[in-house]
Amino acid sequence: MKRIGLMTSGGDAPGMNAVIRAVTRSAVVENIEVYGFLRGFAGILDKEYKKFTYADVGGIMERGGTILRTARVPEFKVPEVRKKAADILKDLGIDVLVIIGGNGSLTGGKLLSEEQGISVIGVPASIDNDIAYTDMSIGVDTCLNTVVDAMQKLKDTASSHERAFIVEVMGRTSGYIALMSGLAIGAEAIIIPEVPTDYDALAEKMWDERKRGKINSIVVVAEGSASAYTVARHLENRIGFETRITILGHIQRGGSPTAFDRILASRMGNEVIKAINDGDFDVMVGLSKNDLIRTPLEKVLSENNTLDMEIVKLAGILS
Amino acid sequence: MKRIGLMTSGGDAPGMNAVIRAVTRSAVVENIEVYGFLRGFAGILDKEYKKFTYADVGGIMERGGTILRTARVPEFKVPEVRKKAADILKDLGIDVLVIIGGNGSLTGGKLLSEEQGISVIGVPASIDNDIAYTDMSIGVDTCLNTVVDAMQKLKDTASSHERAFIVEVMGRTSGYIALMSGLAIGAEAIIIPEVPTDYDALAEKMWDERKRGKINSIVVVAEGSASAYTVARHLENRIGFETRITILGHIQRGGSPTAFDRILASRMGNEVIKAINDGDFDVMVGLSKNDLIRTPLEKVLSENNTLDMEIVKLAGILS
Amino acid sequence: MKRIGLMTSGGDAPGMNAVIRAVTRSAVVENIEVYGFLRGFAGILDKEYKKFTYADVGGIMERGGTILRTARVPEFKVPEVRKKAADILKDLGIDVLVIIGGNGSLTGGKLLSEEQGISVIGVPASIDNDIAYTDMSIGVDTCLNTVVDAMQKLKDTASSHERAFIVEVMGRTSGYIALMSGLAIGAEAIIIPEVPTDYDALAEKMWDERKRGKINSIVVVAEGSASAYTVARHLENRIGFETRITILGHIQRGGSPTAFDRILASRMGNEVIKAINDGDFDVMVGLSKNDLIRTPLEKVLSENNTLDMEIVKLAGILS
Amino acid sequence: MKRIGLMTSGGDAPGMNAVIRAVTRSAVVENIEVYGFLRGFAGILDKEYKKFTYADVGGIMERGGTILRTARVPEFKVPEVRKKAADILKDLGIDVLVIIGGNGSLTGGKLLSEEQGISVIGVPASIDNDIAYTDMSIGVDTCLNTVVDAMQKLKDTASSHERAFIVEVMGRTSGYIALMSGLAIGAEAIIIPEVPTDYDALAEKMWDERKRGKINSIVVVAEGSASAYTVARHLENRIGFETRITILGHIQRGGSPTAFDRILASRMGNEVIKAINDGDFDVMVGLSKNDLIRTPLEKVLSENNTLDMEIVKLAGILS
Repeated sequence: MKRIGLMTSGGDAPGMNAVIRAVTRSAVVENIEVYGFLRGFAGILDKEYKKFTYADVGGIMERGGTILRTARVPEFKVPEVRKKAADILKDLGIDVLVIIGGNGSLTGGKLLSEEQGISVIGVPASIDNDIAYTDMSIGVDTCLNTVVDAMQKLKDTASSHERAFIVEVMGRTSGYIALMSGLAIGAEAIIIPEVPTDYDALAEKMWDERKRGKINSIVVVAEGSASAYTVARHLENRIGFETRITILGHIQRGGSPTAFDRILASRMGNEVIKAINDGDFDVMVGLSKNDLIRTPLEKVLSENNTLDMEIVKLAGILS
Repeated sequence: MKRIGLMTSGGDAPGMNAVIRAVTRSAVVENIEVYGFLRGFAGILDKEYKKFTYADVGGIMERGGTILRTARVPEFKVPEVRKKAADILKDLGIDVLVIIGGNGSLTGGKLLSEEQGISVIGVPASIDNDIAYTDMSIGVDTCLNTVVDAMQKLKDTASSHERAFIVEVMGRTSGYIALMSGLAIGAEAIIIPEVPTDYDALAEKMWDERKRGKINSIVVVAEGSASAYTVARHLENRIGFETRITILGHIQRGGSPTAFDRILASRMGNEVIKAINDGDFDVMVGLSKNDLIRTPLEKVLSENNTLDMEIVKLAGILS
Repeated sequence: MKRIGLMTSGGDAPGMNAVIRAVTRSAVVENIEVYGFLRGFAGILDKEYKKFTYADVGGIMERGGTILRTARVPEFKVPEVRKKAADILKDLGIDVLVIIGGNGSLTGGKLLSEEQGISVIGVPASIDNDIAYTDMSIGVDTCLNTVVDAMQKLKDTASSHERAFIVEVMGRTSGYIALMSGLAIGAEAIIIPEVPTDYDALAEKMWDERKRGKINSIVVVAEGSASAYTVARHLENRIGFETRITILGHIQRGGSPTAFDRILASRMGNEVIKAINDGDFDVMVGLSKNDLIRTPLEKVLSENNTLDMEIVKLAGILS
Repeated sequence: MKRIGLMTSGGDAPGMNAVIRAVTRSAVVENIEVYGFLRGFAGILDKEYKKFTYADVGGIMERGGTILRTARVPEFKVPEVRKKAADILKDLGIDVLVIIGGNGSLTGGKLLSEEQGISVIGVPASIDNDIAYTDMSIGVDTCLNTVVDAMQKLKDTASSHERAFIVEVMGRTSGYIALMSGLAIGAEAIIIPEVPTDYDALAEKMWDERKRGKINSIVVVAEGSASAYTVARHLENRIGFETRITILGHIQRGGSPTAFDRILASRMGNEVIKAINDGDFDVMVGLSKNDLIRTPLEKVLSENNTLDMEIVKLAGILS
């Protein structure tokens, strides 16, 4: 009987629990044992795990967060630490380690495989949608809906007052959340790391729109580009009307997963077990069109999903 | 200056307004005039239309339904009626007719083009996701989230009682909504037109699960397969415990569009204007991976999106 | 040390878990032990219970349904059965039985007290808001929001088509849910057991509105008055345009409780322990203005919350 | 025929549109004309108004914000400015001015009445629930649900990480939103202007809970007490683990009103017209138990809704 390890790692993303459920239940059908490790790589090092049965993963699909918890484990960058983790996995008779997480976590997995010969399969989970070789990562869709719902409420009140609202969203290196939510809400401006910000031009645009009768403005900013406070200061100096700030913070990582994230997670979790049965290791499962694909981790990690500049342009046209 | 007609047709789908906004604003930038026809083909025949400006489509993206309304126009199957519509469009100086709707509406468009020489561009909108050559149609994502949210509430109360819940969802010829929502909620059974129903086997499965301690069951049924009442009668005779019925009806067509539907609608609406500028007519815009594509209407309408039988199997494994 | 029993009974209502949490945590602080009985009175008869600690009720406030489950126990109408339950409670050293439920469950409690000398405290939970001596019962607010959200989606699509929508909501003897949701959505007609229905007048009203340009109609019907199908048949014969049906069913009992229900449940659960410390038994806690009150069960059960006919009139004026 | 003025003023609150609809439609039935003034007192001074018919207020009940917009008009503190407004109202033949707003706006109304003889009727709208002589003000319920929904998402991710989350909510002088939402979410700490904050004790409590195994903490802070950043700095110094910040900002003023706010607004709007017909002026309508009451503005404005210290205590017990 095969035995696999399962862990969630890095920043958490809605839908991780749905992957845990799908991996476990698909494994049970194939007579594969599942050991769930707590708090990502930390749980391996601390030997904190639990054997998962069919019933253990009932009622979790709809819950945000991850029942396995996550942690960031900086010491995993040290080869000796990875060696120790590999030894523990081997002692436990783990044939394959399934890692649900982002580029950082998958990199840890790739190293475990290359250096220590641990077979690894990755499932892309990241609200930033910055993982290559999958159209969508787990959690992206839920996160975008959370941000759009919040900004929609701002739009109500924005229409009542005569103000600009600055909304800071997640995205240290990627403007994906800011761009897509800004497009979906019709934001007046979207400030992202990928595009330099010209505050003079922005202030002029906002001022023009005000003169044309527009009474509200929403400006979305990715945290990696500037803080909401910085943007507010830049704008207030130039436009002469008040701004108000919203910082969504970690609510962007929570919430019950959307239908899309549940379905994607269910399919990807099942695909993991299919890959194991096919002997297809050191790959990440991904979505391409409506199909599931598998791509070697090395290839996945050598690229980055970059922002579609056509969408940047489109957001400008439609707002 | 170019002039285009714009209409929504057939069953309405959340996101139609976002397409209207994106077509109009993209057109304005390209110096193209937009005439919006009310109630689909009926508005052409009745010459009910309105010139749309940039401001006319402000604040509509978030609203369900369609500001242009829709209608089913059976008489459009008569060639003389289509001839009359074409004459009116020509009189109005309409260069291209943009049709937002499902297979039926697109078929009307294709005939207008073939018989009457009216250039047509289609945008796929259908909660059933039954249109070929696009990964997703406008409205599908919102509809699935509506259904999943409703069923999630059933799951709460299902865990409190000892009962089976039968939920009837839309889908006259397609089990797509039933299948995908059933997968996303972990339904015990999914009854769809594409797969024959064995009520004896289903009752036995439910009875087995009850014995194993499961206290709730949700059965999803596509309206095209059976009514909730029929399913209830079949099951109650066989399982000996009570069932309760939910029929979601047209709430599945409503609601503010999700982030996904807003973004898809915005991109597709813009792509329509790009196609016009490229002189690319009698095509439907579609989504393939994360890219927009254009496919001749004839090709689109010669195929049908069929259900992925792998997902039917997956739903069985995970529930 | 005191020991209390805790149970949920009858139709479940969102917020029951929040009461369980508040009773338990307030009890712990006062050094009172809590035994939670499963499935209402059935759990007493079957001696199915669990001792609840502070930690046991963590993370449950936000969940719909009830972790104690509920059941309807018709045999509890037999005095001998109640005697048996009382004996079990006495054997277990239960000083007070806390019953979270509706009029039926509270009646069972009152009889336990009168006949068997078991001290009882009631917490009103019922989506129908039909319990006297409390402005609101647990679950009412969440239920109304569920119904209003669903009907709001209908309104979107209703504005797109030219149809009447019939929505059947809960309420066997009370039109409360139908009336309040109908008021909150601006329904064209509200059909409730408390008011006789004149289908001719209703059809005429709908027809008049259609002539005045109104393109949508929503008719809400309480299940105790008529089924949606009956209403549809009556109307279609008279108005000559199509109707569509939604039957919400048990989704009205589910969902994460609203802020109001969480706060009400938290306050009422705490008040139960205060009443116990005050030696104030055989009462129901209730909300009056923003204050908590306690009313003898006998008084509570001798009255019925009846519908406010001013609100019936108001709904007619505003729609 | 009577003619009334209608305005929304101060910070906007969800449900204001539902009041506008109810006042207008109730007025129409009673043959009273409604002039809606834009941007509160500013619209009177600028003579910006619109006559409202039955149809003008269709489809607005569900929308956040206010179609009449609001403004803060500091110059209204000057008696000459109020004189000018009164003269305009008299010129327009306005018999009664209906003001939907908070204590500040009602104070403006009271002065208009006392000094200038303008009859005024107030409707309490304020997300802070700080208006006396009504159990609830318009907008409170929607606001609390918005805050609770956001914090619930934090709780998901809080359970995945090992961190403290600081959430800043509205409330310059009142801790109402922080207290009630904190109670509804089970926050570890609630920092409000009404209660002094002992950061040492708070840090110790959080540290104790961490040792007992609790892995998440949510701290709610009312903006009038401290900023989220200040709280974070105080805590990080003392507890030694990371904090993350969410500032909800004006999303707390937006959103489609809840069922409660729609019903309350509908009833209050109708009560305004009843008061006018009764010749009952210079009062505010309010909710007491489930009944509507009218209280002289002078009395309303001489008191303040203060926080219920029992609830402060309760929040401490239950968290």
